[in-house]
Amino acid sequence: MQSFEFFYDFSSPYSYLASTQVERVAREAGAAVRFRPFFLGGVFKAVNGHPPFETPAKFQHMIVDLARWAKRYRVPFNMPAQFPVPSITALRAALAAEKAGQLVPFSHAMFRAVWADSKEIGDPAQIVSIARAAGLDAEPFVAAAAEHKDALRAQTEEAVSRGAFGAPTFFVGDELFLGNDRLDFVKEALLAAK
Amino acid sequence: MQSFEFFYDFSSPYSYLASTQVERVAREAGAAVRFRPFFLGGVFKAVNGHPPFETPAKFQHMIVDLARWAKRYRVPFNMPAQFPVPSITALRAALAAEKAGQLVPFSHAMFRAVWADSKEIGDPAQIVSIARAAGLDAEPFVAAAAEHKDALRAQTEEAVSRGAFGAPTFFVGDELFLGNDRLDFVKEALLAAK
Repeated sequence: MQSFEFFYDFSSPYSYLASTQVERVAREAGAAVRFRPFFLGGVFKAVNGHPPFETPAKFQHMIVDLARWAKRYRVPFNMPAQFPVPSITALRAALAAEKAGQLVPFSHAMFRAVWADSKEIGDPAQIVSIARAAGLDAEPFVAAAAEHKDALRAQTEEAVSRGAFGAPTFFVGDELFLGNDRLDFVKEALLAAK
Repeated sequence: MQSFEFFYDFSSPYSYLASTQVERVAREAGAAVRFRPFFLGGVFKAVNGHPPFETPAKFQHMIVDLARWAKRYRVPFNMPAQFPVPSITALRAALAAEKAGQLVPFSHAMFRAVWADSKEIGDPAQIVSIARAAGLDAEPFVAAAAEHKDALRAQTEEAVSRGAFGAPTFFVGDELFLGNDRLDFVKEALLAAK
């Protein structure tokens, strides 16, 4: 089965938007999507990139643009009170959740918490509480988060070595696509490879 | 009649892509498009922005992404030998062309020269030669280019004061849209305003 990779960080609003669509795209393309959390701060550092909030006019437009996409996708969207979002513990916990076969529901729960429900995910107790509301027992994931520090770094470095410079990043084989707004190109690439 | 503004610089490849689509969008939305050259270097300077070629991974992806869009639009696209493109004389000449009612054909000729035909537009003689091949007598525009230095700066400052931070930038009234990939949002906004 054809597949594509979805690299994301819970701190990235365009990753949240993409998270609401990747399973639809996979279904429409008859492909599988592989969820791959990475640390966007590490990506920016590695490529000498610039987070959008460094340029006020860009940030201002981003907030409007995000609302336009949310309306198009018919998904809830609210800027979090806490921005940038401290996501690293949740990302490491996501890799622990992956070992338990719970990466996808755990990731959806974190994305919704931050970008729809205005909840904070910086602290272990917040992560556990959010995951519990989504029907997941995340205590073991959070407890094992620290053990996945190196794995998160390795996953981030892998993405950078393959050309990533922002989020969300998609790969169809070696082909890189940046942004939820390139998901139609991802779908085309999947269909063309059939 | 409803209308939208199209701010562009000949040095911007996404502005070129947009230039091949704005008249179609206008037609489909039953609206008019107003061509408004501005100086992207001045925009970046004013907003503390970063041209994409400052981040190698971003630039690498941009080249691939541009080719994807050109294929979708079925328009020719070639990266110019000279990059960044020295566009300021052509931009000033475009404002002179506007006074003669020739802004749109002049702009299409410059865009095609740079992004399809791998021609340079840095020198007055090159601009005149390209415009002549497109059936335009551009000698008076180039001769008057220097007189439009302040007008180009004013147009650039106006865009920045209204929130612009890159190119192409579109306005539907006060609503700002960045990038050829947002033209469908522009069309929706035009139709919604009817």
